[in-house]
Amino acid sequence: MASSEPKESPSNNPGLHQEPDEATRGYFLQQTMFRIKDPKASLDFYSRVLGMRLLKRLDFAEMKFSLYFLGYENPESGPADPTERTVWTFGQKATLELTHNWGTESDPEFKGYHNGNSEPRGFGHIGITVDDTYKACERFERLGVEFVKKPDDGKMKGLAFIKDPDGYWIEIFDLKRIGGISAGAS
Amino acid sequence: MASSEPKESPSNNPGLHQEPDEATRGYFLQQTMFRIKDPKASLDFYSRVLGMRLLKRLDFAEMKFSLYFLGYENPESGPADPTERTVWTFGQKATLELTHNWGTESDPEFKGYHNGNSEPRGFGHIGITVDDTYKACERFERLGVEFVKKPDDGKMKGLAFIKDPDGYWIEIFDLKRIGGISAGAS
Repeated sequence: MASSEPKESPSNNPGLHQEPDEATRGYFLQQTMFRIKDPKASLDFYSRVLGMRLLKRLDFAEMKFSLYFLGYENPESGPADPTERTVWTFGQKATLELTHNWGTESDPEFKGYHNGNSEPRGFGHIGITVDDTYKACERFERLGVEFVKKPDDGKMKGLAFIKDPDGYWIEIFDLKRIGGISAGAS
Repeated sequence: MASSEPKESPSNNPGLHQEPDEATRGYFLQQTMFRIKDPKASLDFYSRVLGMRLLKRLDFAEMKFSLYFLGYENPESGPADPTERTVWTFGQKATLELTHNWGTESDPEFKGYHNGNSEPRGFGHIGITVDDTYKACERFERLGVEFVKKPDDGKMKGLAFIKDPDGYWIEIFDLKRIGGISAGAS
């Protein structure tokens, strides 16, 4: 590593461009989409356990699927008109888009979705910043949430992974501890 | 549907809780992680094509992997101290975390990662709000980006899907058109 430059500089990261193209001004990461088996289970989990709100729902009857956009904005701060509400939702950063293909929730043949952390691997997780990882995880335990890693499991004390109803992984961390946890990295 | 309530209300969405638990106050969706084969290719794509910045890099030498946190914040607005920079990064909403397991980029046996849109399905895509989908996609075409769906393909005119270097899907839309595009949904 070139010692005089920060680790994140282009000189230390082949491929990285320092100055964004003017054409990309205003771009933002708006959504992360994954498929869910049962909206009732997922809406319960994301709203009751993780405190998310349903910002927008879109139903595509002809194609038999629905989209549920969840986030941490107050839905009451958005417009009531359905189309304006869609625009408002797509103007929010960091939403979760859950896709429900109708019928999976009651189909005995449906084998569930793949969370990406076993072969074939790809997607890993979403991550949520909380106020206090230990307090949050004590509450998750009381609520019966399934853990991949409890905060004191393994080497990285103070961060956790939980599972959503489809088995997708959600990392849980807080800003008081994340600096110390990652101090083992160079 | 109960006609007197908005579509997104709990009465129309079994499982949904209206009022978030006080314990979840301050939570936000901070990151979406997926695995990448070659950081050089991914850093080039996300910075040059999509205008993202490298906010933080963490290298775990013992476990032979690195994490690249990308987002739309100006890295110069973050602290220079490595640990403080980690905390700052984890305090940003809507970052992309790319995990590179060392060696995949030069391993002829490595078969690549799974994008979740063929069997076994699960994860679908990330989505980026741009200023103008058509202009953005003309530029992507000039840059040689691979498309899953060009803006005028299919029924949903005005939104597109592109692929990143690992084949993950990225939806591209703008706020001028998304209301009209989704008007076909109920």
